Amino acid sequence: MIKYPGGKEYKATAERKRKKSSSEISISSANRGMSFESDINASNEYYKDHDICLITKRPTPINVVKVDYSKGAKIVHAYFEEQSTTDYNGVYKSRYIDFEAKNTKNKTSFPLNNITKHQIEHLKKVIAHGGIAFFIIQFESLDKVYILDASYVIHFYEKGERKSIPLSCFIESGIEVERAYNPRLKYIDAVEKLYF
Amino acid sequence: MIKYPGGKEYKATAERKRKKSSSEISISSANRGMSFESDINASNEYYKDHDICLITKRPTPINVVKVDYSKGAKIVHAYFEEQSTTDYNGVYKSRYIDFEAKNTKNKTSFPLNNITKHQIEHLKKVIAHGGIAFFIIQFESLDKVYILDASYVIHFYEKGERKSIPLSCFIESGIEVERAYNPRLKYIDAVEKLYF
Repeated sequence: MIKYPGGKEYKATAERKRKKSSSEISISSANRGMSFESDINASNEYYKDHDICLITKRPTPINVVKVDYSKGAKIVHAYFEEQSTTDYNGVYKSRYIDFEAKNTKNKTSFPLNNITKHQIEHLKKVIAHGGIAFFIIQFESLDKVYILDASYVIHFYEKGERKSIPLSCFIESGIEVERAYNPRLKYIDAVEKLYF
Repeated sequence: MIKYPGGKEYKATAERKRKKSSSEISISSANRGMSFESDINASNEYYKDHDICLITKRPTPINVVKVDYSKGAKIVHAYFEEQSTTDYNGVYKSRYIDFEAKNTKNKTSFPLNNITKHQIEHLKKVIAHGGIAFFIIQFESLDKVYILDASYVIHFYEKGERKSIPLSCFIESGIEVERAYNPRLKYIDAVEKLYF
């Protein structure tokens, strides 16, 4: 998985990076994080094909500095930009859906250090405009996936006392996402329970 | 917005790149197309800051082939990918909004040759899930901007007899978008008239 200098994951090209090997990349953790994203993307494909909802992944913004036109618009100099919104958004039953997906190795809580102020501000506005905003979190060590309304994440983020959300909050206030063969993550069932 | 050196708006450039050589690119028309996108982006900023709606531009997908980590995650080899969805989506009054923005020099009709099959399929699904789907088209020679429900575009696209939509269709079935100082394009007023 590609990482920013700060160590943040660059998810969009995770699959492509599988072919490349870089000493700075932890392949194993990359694969785990990657497989979670792959599960969500595959589920979105299933949901799209079965006309259940239409959720798309936002491409990671890239700042293009230089393009070589002599080689068919080959980008030869560019940088990853930080996503100021969330990874996924779309529509389900006419409602606007917006969520961020994160994987954590932590067994007892979800650390918020990968959540940016911009994302929090974005999610607050989604809620203000009547959209459905949540996080889908994979606790990989527990092999559990939950969705949790963004309002909890905003609360813990802004309380600032602890920069993590205890697992108990996901168990009590979130909904566990069931795994299946297809879709791999039945997260719309969880959305249905939580919001409809 | 991503710019190439020289300030050319990359999308218009990239599209031309597939057919033409760089020498054939009209900088001025690229800039005009760019300014239309800038107007939309600036309007979205205004709408966001004034809590009217939350519409974001999807970053253009870029296929990252090679990253140089010795220079702080500098992308040294990548290619633009075709947008399989639309440029903009978001939420207004709880409803999902999804639209494509295009500029045309044509005075009498909007040619559909820049619309991809993927985008048509995407917009059909947006409509099927109860989202609001439209095109915002600038007829730059007429200095007019209209929004038109995507169903008309889908109709003309699939009828296939003519690969363009006559201006009269925009005048009769669309809503003209008023220009202002801020927001530069009051397109949400047009959305309000058309859908609410």
